[in-house]
Amino acid sequence: MKRGLFVGRFQPLHIGHIQAIKNVLEKVEELVIIIGSSQRSHEIDNPFTAGERIEMIHKALNEAGVDRACYYTVPVPDCEMHTTWVSVVRTLSPRFDIVFSNEPLTRRLFKEEGYKIEGIQLYERELYSATEIRKRMLAGKNWEKLVSKSVATYIKEIKGIERLLEITKTDKPIK
Amino acid sequence: MKRGLFVGRFQPLHIGHIQAIKNVLEKVEELVIIIGSSQRSHEIDNPFTAGERIEMIHKALNEAGVDRACYYTVPVPDCEMHTTWVSVVRTLSPRFDIVFSNEPLTRRLFKEEGYKIEGIQLYERELYSATEIRKRMLAGKNWEKLVSKSVATYIKEIKGIERLLEITKTDKPIK
Amino acid sequence: MKRGLFVGRFQPLHIGHIQAIKNVLEKVEELVIIIGSSQRSHEIDNPFTAGERIEMIHKALNEAGVDRACYYTVPVPDCEMHTTWVSVVRTLSPRFDIVFSNEPLTRRLFKEEGYKIEGIQLYERELYSATEIRKRMLAGKNWEKLVSKSVATYIKEIKGIERLLEITKTDKPIK
Amino acid sequence: MKRGLFVGRFQPLHIGHIQAIKNVLEKVEELVIIIGSSQRSHEIDNPFTAGERIEMIHKALNEAGVDRACYYTVPVPDCEMHTTWVSVVRTLSPRFDIVFSNEPLTRRLFKEEGYKIEGIQLYERELYSATEIRKRMLAGKNWEKLVSKSVATYIKEIKGIERLLEITKTDKPIK
Amino acid sequence: MKRGLFVGRFQPLHIGHIQAIKNVLEKVEELVIIIGSSQRSHEIDNPFTAGERIEMIHKALNEAGVDRACYYTVPVPDCEMHTTWVSVVRTLSPRFDIVFSNEPLTRRLFKEEGYKIEGIQLYERELYSATEIRKRMLAGKNWEKLVSKSVATYIKEIKGIERLLEITKTDKPIK
Amino acid sequence: MKRGLFVGRFQPLHIGHIQAIKNVLEKVEELVIIIGSSQRSHEIDNPFTAGERIEMIHKALNEAGVDRACYYTVPVPDCEMHTTWVSVVRTLSPRFDIVFSNEPLTRRLFKEEGYKIEGIQLYERELYSATEIRKRMLAGKNWEKLVSKSVATYIKEIKGIERLLEITKTDKPIK
Repeated sequence: MKRGLFVGRFQPLHIGHIQAIKNVLEKVEELVIIIGSSQRSHEIDNPFTAGERIEMIHKALNEAGVDRACYYTVPVPDCEMHTTWVSVVRTLSPRFDIVFSNEPLTRRLFKEEGYKIEGIQLYERELYSATEIRKRMLAGKNWEKLVSKSVATYIKEIKGIERLLEITKTDKPIK
Repeated sequence: MKRGLFVGRFQPLHIGHIQAIKNVLEKVEELVIIIGSSQRSHEIDNPFTAGERIEMIHKALNEAGVDRACYYTVPVPDCEMHTTWVSVVRTLSPRFDIVFSNEPLTRRLFKEEGYKIEGIQLYERELYSATEIRKRMLAGKNWEKLVSKSVATYIKEIKGIERLLEITKTDKPIK
Repeated sequence: MKRGLFVGRFQPLHIGHIQAIKNVLEKVEELVIIIGSSQRSHEIDNPFTAGERIEMIHKALNEAGVDRACYYTVPVPDCEMHTTWVSVVRTLSPRFDIVFSNEPLTRRLFKEEGYKIEGIQLYERELYSATEIRKRMLAGKNWEKLVSKSVATYIKEIKGIERLLEITKTDKPIK
Repeated sequence: MKRGLFVGRFQPLHIGHIQAIKNVLEKVEELVIIIGSSQRSHEIDNPFTAGERIEMIHKALNEAGVDRACYYTVPVPDCEMHTTWVSVVRTLSPRFDIVFSNEPLTRRLFKEEGYKIEGIQLYERELYSATEIRKRMLAGKNWEKLVSKSVATYIKEIKGIERLLEITKTDKPIK
Repeated sequence: MKRGLFVGRFQPLHIGHIQAIKNVLEKVEELVIIIGSSQRSHEIDNPFTAGERIEMIHKALNEAGVDRACYYTVPVPDCEMHTTWVSVVRTLSPRFDIVFSNEPLTRRLFKEEGYKIEGIQLYERELYSATEIRKRMLAGKNWEKLVSKSVATYIKEIKGIERLLEITKTDKPIK
Repeated sequence: MKRGLFVGRFQPLHIGHIQAIKNVLEKVEELVIIIGSSQRSHEIDNPFTAGERIEMIHKALNEAGVDRACYYTVPVPDCEMHTTWVSVVRTLSPRFDIVFSNEPLTRRLFKEEGYKIEGIQLYERELYSATEIRKRMLAGKNWEKLVSKSVATYIKEIKGIERLLEITKTDKPIK
């Protein structure tokens, strides 16, 4: 059996992520989904907690008909040293055989540790982007159609837009 | 829908844990299983990594016929301050309504934060205990019957006994 | 008896802070003054140590005739997770009933933990601002009239302007 | 003006501490009281939070008639390196001229940094000891007479004995 | 015997560093070379690991004919508190008598701890600068002549330019 | 060229270490000497700072006639996760081909990362042991003959025995 690793921050999870996960699941039998920068939340670029992002993933993959037995979700924090991050992933995650990522630093770090890496085929990257979604959330524009229905509902349920708007006004130094 | 939280270290996961999780799943629809002290491994009392413990849980619950759609697994590290640990759990975990635990400090910390807590009915606690299992592993005695078949197979596959025996001889200061 | 919490960085403490503290002390009997980002100093935006900021508060409140029995000063560092910061404050501070703050993230974090929050009435905010004071210190302009006399004297005593001017020239990466 | 530094863990604050603080205040005009190991609580040897210990100090010194204008309370955490601890104290505390301590490591660390150190005259050390008090609390024996009245009342108010008894039963690994 | 301290990040080590070290070695008999921000690597401004920077220093000083018995190399990480950094240096480094640095914050921090500090005479600072070298590496321009021959060879050997170009494309949040 | 890695805590460095380093240097051309637990000092089992241990190594190897061009010294702290420690060593150290160690956990961790490991031939292990030396230092017995002459002189110069005796009396909780 072959198990893949898929790394993202999912701030928030959008339709592009779902599409990519489905594509990857055609190549491996199981997938570990790493929720990166798990310590971050309540920041303009990272509004949601790791727990909230885990809920989004389970809801949206369920909505998309992905069998829950095919994937694991594992939150992983950033490291003080970039060079220890791969060993932290390896410690917190079930064993994996191949890494799927387009992110240059992630690719580089896994490559230096000898892993096999493959790119992810992205679907309308400009549109289905977490940065675009957060921009629309702040501008009061339509962001809902860029995420799964269940994710849109969930973000409203936890008053996510209200949180994002409030923290935007902060002057607290961000570490 | 009601979601419970179940906290353990699972060093290793044994039949008592499985029984307890099944009992708890009669009271709640979904369960978040927290893999506590997730940063620890390669120690006499904590031989397995969080990722290995996640694999054990999925394998054993699958063997026990528990539907994967009913539970989440979330690794959570210890904190420098006991008093921040509950907020770390809350950050990394999907939202939960009730905590299941017999561990006095865990119970106390959640109680101080206003959570509802319930005890876990344990089945032959003296026998089905991770401490007893590690003792048997070290003594070369039969430990296999205290864990699920799939867990015993997995521990042998990753050469877990060999690791435990090797680190037992360490004189490295443990933080 | 009712105790309030007042959060600031006080880089440096100015007359606007003193005015606000006096206003708040009309609503509560005791006040815990949190010196936020206590780990920071020797940075352009955070020139003073937590200990120096504590001295400023005691000197200026004494000058302003505020009874020392009415307030506590507690230094609190930033957290790796925003979501644990409220529990760190709760751990290091005497118990409190209400939070006074205008800072959006601080307000949001306490609100999510169920605290009662009230805004602070600010007096000529543009002028009495720590940012404005640091700008004047760097430009060699009159900053003294924006702080209490005892604070101006103290900053000169510890050669604070000299420190600020020196660190401005740094090229050391700031974490 | 001469300012002293007095370091303790105050788990809990007892009459011996109060007596010592009063003695020291005859030698210096102001005293900074450092609440050491401020990150620790909910442990058998460290049951109380830093905030609770600050409340105890203020209550007991008030009861003892010590003028609040004479002292500061500053919580300071332990350090990963013993050799950085003095600089952390110096950062978080108002400036001080002399250190009062009987604790050998504390004395040694300040001595290596060039500070003047003086011992503390202890009054019936065997009896007025935090270790003895915690032992009595656990054994259900009379501990109240070893602490100030206001401290005994406060500990009961926050249900401190209940907490100590509960955490005693823990099997959670203490970092 | 007099021992000096020389602090740098060496990202990468260039001919200006070598010249400065040689100049300083005319004033002291031994030199401790501190590799600052030792935890950083795989970033645009900090591409090389501390270990790689140590190798560069040994290779280049050997090439320059500097006797290895004259210097030590010690990697030192950044600190959460600027004010503890000098004590971390003092803990990890052999004892030293004088600090050589032009960096304003470094100078200030050592000065506040009572050290003697001297500036470094720089040779064509605009040209022999790590920032200039990284800029040329990214632009595909000639950077080799700004570093020692052995350093140029080493950087090519470890495929340093490839790493720098790859991480430049990252969108991962840098802590 | 082949480079080895030699890991120790050197609390203190003794004749057994010197003998082992000399033996290893017959197998490799260069050796990186890792000063482990570099953050620890001022503890009964870890009295000396990393910087002091580096000085001991250079003095004793010089006394033993080992060419300074053959070895590097690199201080490395303990890690919160044992499983990241090897990547921290790899980041802070020049590249190495083979690890020399008898310490079971060190061996295990490098083995899991795929390194070649060799044992160290020890000379009268019971006698030439840092534990034995610290015991003798505390008991006022002859420890000098177990270390190099230059190390004995150095330890006296920095008043190391006085430090060890003082910290022995501590009651400060050791992290």
